[in-house]
Amino acid sequence: MYYEVVSQCTQSLRLLDGWLDKAVAFAEAKNIDVDSLLNGRLAPDMKPLIYQVQSACDYVKAAAAWLSGQTLPKHEDNETTVEELRARIRKTVDFAESVPQTKYQGADGRTVKLSWAQGKVMGGKDYLLQMTIPNVYFHIAMVYAVLRSSGVDVGKMDFLGTLNFIEA
Amino acid sequence: MYYEVVSQCTQSLRLLDGWLDKAVAFAEAKNIDVDSLLNGRLAPDMKPLIYQVQSACDYVKAAAAWLSGQTLPKHEDNETTVEELRARIRKTVDFAESVPQTKYQGADGRTVKLSWAQGKVMGGKDYLLQMTIPNVYFHIAMVYAVLRSSGVDVGKMDFLGTLNFIEA
Repeated sequence: MYYEVVSQCTQSLRLLDGWLDKAVAFAEAKNIDVDSLLNGRLAPDMKPLIYQVQSACDYVKAAAAWLSGQTLPKHEDNETTVEELRARIRKTVDFAESVPQTKYQGADGRTVKLSWAQGKVMGGKDYLLQMTIPNVYFHIAMVYAVLRSSGVDVGKMDFLGTLNFIEA
Repeated sequence: MYYEVVSQCTQSLRLLDGWLDKAVAFAEAKNIDVDSLLNGRLAPDMKPLIYQVQSACDYVKAAAAWLSGQTLPKHEDNETTVEELRARIRKTVDFAESVPQTKYQGADGRTVKLSWAQGKVMGGKDYLLQMTIPNVYFHIAMVYAVLRSSGVDVGKMDFLGTLNFIEA
């Protein structure tokens, strides 16, 4: 289920593009600079919205690369504008979607190094369950939380996106 | 991987108990009523922390029940205190952990009804990927966000919990 989980995380990340539309519309309606939203945070010692987007992107990228046995593409953390954030999301989604399902074969047997945990690795399944899923959704949720607390009209269905219903 | 995903969601839910410890300690240190945290929210039209805990619990409970072909235990949404929230988390975790891995066999072929989507169902895999994971982590992250924005000293490692590292 590696491919399916990473694909769903990628779909969730893609939703941020629509939230940025709402942030831009909100800033225009209030006649404020959208930068005040991009640099918004929930607490003074928390990283701002721009970082939360970058971080969500990086956890999707890392899962798609490490769990499929590929080299991680390098993405600089230098975005400052809405258009740059959209481009960051787009290149992350493009990379994740470029990895075919077959490449995830053997993910169970792969190990992943974390830069901040010297001398240790995580098994593929633990990486997916304990790092990818919680971190992707944490950072996406922090983007949501900053926008929501600023008054931007994002709601639960914006977070969930398209659901695959079947007629009963 | 149904069992593993639901188990990880359950572990993440269990972490809320430690966050409540921090909320209680914060309220004591600031000499404020902890109710102000339990009723905290990011925006006036958002549901408060108590609801976010209840909702995270319900998505864990629903996944453990529906995907294993069992009847959903009924939990009333009547918590108002820290101790009652702890009890809600505990009975949810206890239920989820009572479901053995073997019961998830056949989850792929199960369908789940959602009360708000009349005449429709979701397949087991879509329910896990599109409802369980995003909703569990959304509501847990909203609890985190409310506490964080109120000044409670929760951090990223509180969100991630114990990680299964291997010595490299």
